[in-house]
Amino acid sequence: MVTSSAPGKVYLFGEHAVVYGEPAVPCAIEKRARVTAREIDEGLRVHVDDLTLDGYTVEYTGEDDGHPDLEADESLVRAGVGYINEAVAQARAVADRPDAGFEIVVESDIPLGAGLGSSAAVVVAAIDAASRELGVELTPEEIADRAYQVEYAVQDGQASRADTFCSAMGGAVRVEGDDCRRIGGVGNLPFVIGYDGGAGDTGELVAGVRQLREEYDFAADTVGAIGDIVREGESVLGTDDYDSMGELLNFNHGLLAALGVSSRSLDAMVWAAREGGAAGAKLTGAGGGGCIVALDETDGALTALRYTPGCEDAFRAELDTDGVRRE
Amino acid sequence: MVTSSAPGKVYLFGEHAVVYGEPAVPCAIEKRARVTAREIDEGLRVHVDDLTLDGYTVEYTGEDDGHPDLEADESLVRAGVGYINEAVAQARAVADRPDAGFEIVVESDIPLGAGLGSSAAVVVAAIDAASRELGVELTPEEIADRAYQVEYAVQDGQASRADTFCSAMGGAVRVEGDDCRRIGGVGNLPFVIGYDGGAGDTGELVAGVRQLREEYDFAADTVGAIGDIVREGESVLGTDDYDSMGELLNFNHGLLAALGVSSRSLDAMVWAAREGGAAGAKLTGAGGGGCIVALDETDGALTALRYTPGCEDAFRAELDTDGVRRE
Repeated sequence: MVTSSAPGKVYLFGEHAVVYGEPAVPCAIEKRARVTAREIDEGLRVHVDDLTLDGYTVEYTGEDDGHPDLEADESLVRAGVGYINEAVAQARAVADRPDAGFEIVVESDIPLGAGLGSSAAVVVAAIDAASRELGVELTPEEIADRAYQVEYAVQDGQASRADTFCSAMGGAVRVEGDDCRRIGGVGNLPFVIGYDGGAGDTGELVAGVRQLREEYDFAADTVGAIGDIVREGESVLGTDDYDSMGELLNFNHGLLAALGVSSRSLDAMVWAAREGGAAGAKLTGAGGGGCIVALDETDGALTALRYTPGCEDAFRAELDTDGVRRE
Repeated sequence: MVTSSAPGKVYLFGEHAVVYGEPAVPCAIEKRARVTAREIDEGLRVHVDDLTLDGYTVEYTGEDDGHPDLEADESLVRAGVGYINEAVAQARAVADRPDAGFEIVVESDIPLGAGLGSSAAVVVAAIDAASRELGVELTPEEIADRAYQVEYAVQDGQASRADTFCSAMGGAVRVEGDDCRRIGGVGNLPFVIGYDGGAGDTGELVAGVRQLREEYDFAADTVGAIGDIVREGESVLGTDDYDSMGELLNFNHGLLAALGVSSRSLDAMVWAAREGGAAGAKLTGAGGGGCIVALDETDGALTALRYTPGCEDAFRAELDTDGVRRE
């Protein structure tokens, strides 16, 4: 029996613009998914605890056509099960054990569907745990690539390499097109996260930006300006100049708002964090709802978020320099 | 005795960027300042009613060193009195009557200090009323120019030609540097205004944008993108394509937020207006607090604003095609 874990992520800079070839900087956070894999005689049995905030448990045996008996939202379960199925398939392939049976237990501290990379973390940890259980130890880079293949398959080709790479490698990473690399020398970043309990429709949000960008030159320029913020941000990463970094976060948020991907609750949380004393704050991920990330060494932003109507959950989640690891 | 009135204004597009030579489009609104001028034997007597939301009355005789006896904020009164003094001086100069005495009564529907051009409207109406009372009829262009001289003197050289030109001419105007002209063919714009009861520090906000623009190329690009929005907006003005115009308002607001001139209450009002059904909404003026302007033909945005915490006042104020006029 092997337990592996992998971190979730926030986008420090560059979401949406990354779709158009600009660089982006996702960062792993100290919120992890843990996956335990135990080889069994045949089939696949999955236990999923606390994958959502409310928690539910799935137990089933079989392949894609297995219908677990539970009350949780079926599409959510189907998606979760899809990720585990595909992750296990990767482990079977690397070990050349196509018929290996598995009991898989998933636990996660990462709110599901909040744009914090929960699915990538589960997939990365599952590939690591299941392949180790079959006696194969993959490098983080190999896991990142295989996890991307899983997300690509489950998400109908709409996956980004950023989430899986960041989760597998840990720390701050730089993504530009298919080129992903870890940014060295980044020790700590005092992230505070606010979550409105919801999520935007990623496809719709991406399409909205595309439409604006095609219609207006100034929208294309705005996408380019986000890329410039990322390049500027890279020179500040690795320092503890949180004021400059915060200024860049704030600017990045405004440009995302201009591109139509903020929301009332995201803006309210961003202001709460700033007025609570954060060096800066922005939405993270696709937007339209979900999470904001703030930089704050004090308790101010966290307290302000906890008293902000519409903020369902607020927590500290510092930069996690560890990627996937055996527990 | 002559009564003249002149409208306040909102910035449909382009505030802040106009400082760097980009065009801007202020629009006169159906909220007016009315000034009554009556020639008296000597000196200057001023009655100011409802110039602020709470209202106060100033009555005094004499020049700048006159100290009216009242409970209103003294710096506010001093500023208001300065505008009237200088406006009356313009009327005395055009009529070549340096010693003409005046009783002046000022009434205004325009919230003071909210960024809606209340001082420009008072100055414009005062110059018109006082010069007519002395038998001289100035063109709106002449009044605009003289009103600008007044604002320039009272505001220590920090005046923009936009407010006084817009108030004198009415309608939608285009400002680019010192070049101001009226935009023809704009019939109606269904403005809804939300006011948070506060005001930002204009000098500080302008300085903040300047600093960002000097430090970061992407901030300079953002200022340029606002100029592009204005040029795009000009092609939509004169149509009733409020959806496109609203899209431009929303984008303009995001870019202003990126430049650091929005605020928690301004963002809250902007979202209330949008979710209430407005085609679009943005802050208007220097920002940091004050007013937002939304485009909405229905009552939705107005209702939403009235139920928004932090919105002190909300009202409809459509485009006013009349500039300064005798009542």
